Amino acid sequence: MIWICFVIFLAACFAAGATGGLFPPGRWYERLNKPSWTPPNWLFPVAWTTLYVCMAAAGARVAVADGNALAMALWSLQIALNTLWTPVFFGLQRMRLGLLVLAALWLSVAATMVALWSVDWIAGLLFVPYLVWVSVAAALNRAVILLNPDEAARERQPSGD
Amino acid sequence: MIWICFVIFLAACFAAGATGGLFPPGRWYERLNKPSWTPPNWLFPVAWTTLYVCMAAAGARVAVADGNALAMALWSLQIALNTLWTPVFFGLQRMRLGLLVLAALWLSVAATMVALWSVDWIAGLLFVPYLVWVSVAAALNRAVILLNPDEAARERQPSGD
Repeated sequence: MIWICFVIFLAACFAAGATGGLFPPGRWYERLNKPSWTPPNWLFPVAWTTLYVCMAAAGARVAVADGNALAMALWSLQIALNTLWTPVFFGLQRMRLGLLVLAALWLSVAATMVALWSVDWIAGLLFVPYLVWVSVAAALNRAVILLNPDEAARERQPSGD
Repeated sequence: MIWICFVIFLAACFAAGATGGLFPPGRWYERLNKPSWTPPNWLFPVAWTTLYVCMAAAGARVAVADGNALAMALWSLQIALNTLWTPVFFGLQRMRLGLLVLAALWLSVAATMVALWSVDWIAGLLFVPYLVWVSVAAALNRAVILLNPDEAARERQPSGD
């Protein structure tokens, strides 16, 4: 059962990760001013693939444990917010709204980590790299807003086309 | 605990539902040929809001029950796929890829319904309207592809801009 759950949670992660291929950074992101500590582009898919395996393992470990209610509800919330960020940031090119989604994602990942930990400390530990990476992503999103004030000010609204 | 879980699952549903406001149908969808049985636009948010309450209630009921591993993993998978569909269909205007996501969503919703039902029949029942609505959405997505072959053939690729 734990392996079936692992595969299902991993599929959920890859549904979220599919947004990375569908809404790629592209020329818009390339042209933005970025901080000196911006991770290289190749690192993002490598980091996410590693994180997905950790996230799915954490989910599966706690899914088969008792008293998992809060952890399971929060795992669902964080994967929905995770799926939302890329289309907002790279699809709509709305950096401020992206930061708002990332803030919500950060909170949900932190809460999931605590809830997982209370059931199974290994599962909680498996969420630590994820929280670190989302922290880096949020700092990068914020830095890009500050370094591109004109771009941030003219955030595209949905055009309806 | 069940109420806290209900609120968290509902938040996950509204993260998925936010895509409806961020990637609205707009003029592109208005101009497409649609089958005579297409539901009116106003019905979509009403239906989804109702479904979200049912989905969150089903999730919360099973989250606090024993033996919920498979149901919880599948609940997470369906909400990630649910969040993915709108950006693909309305954001990228990729109807065929949208149908592929909807097919995966349909399968995950059906599997979640069965898994929920095996733990708590009321939770399973609460997923029936969702499965019906996703079936209607998939039939509509398919009909729109067939009624707009030129549009379907020239599916926009991510432009990189």
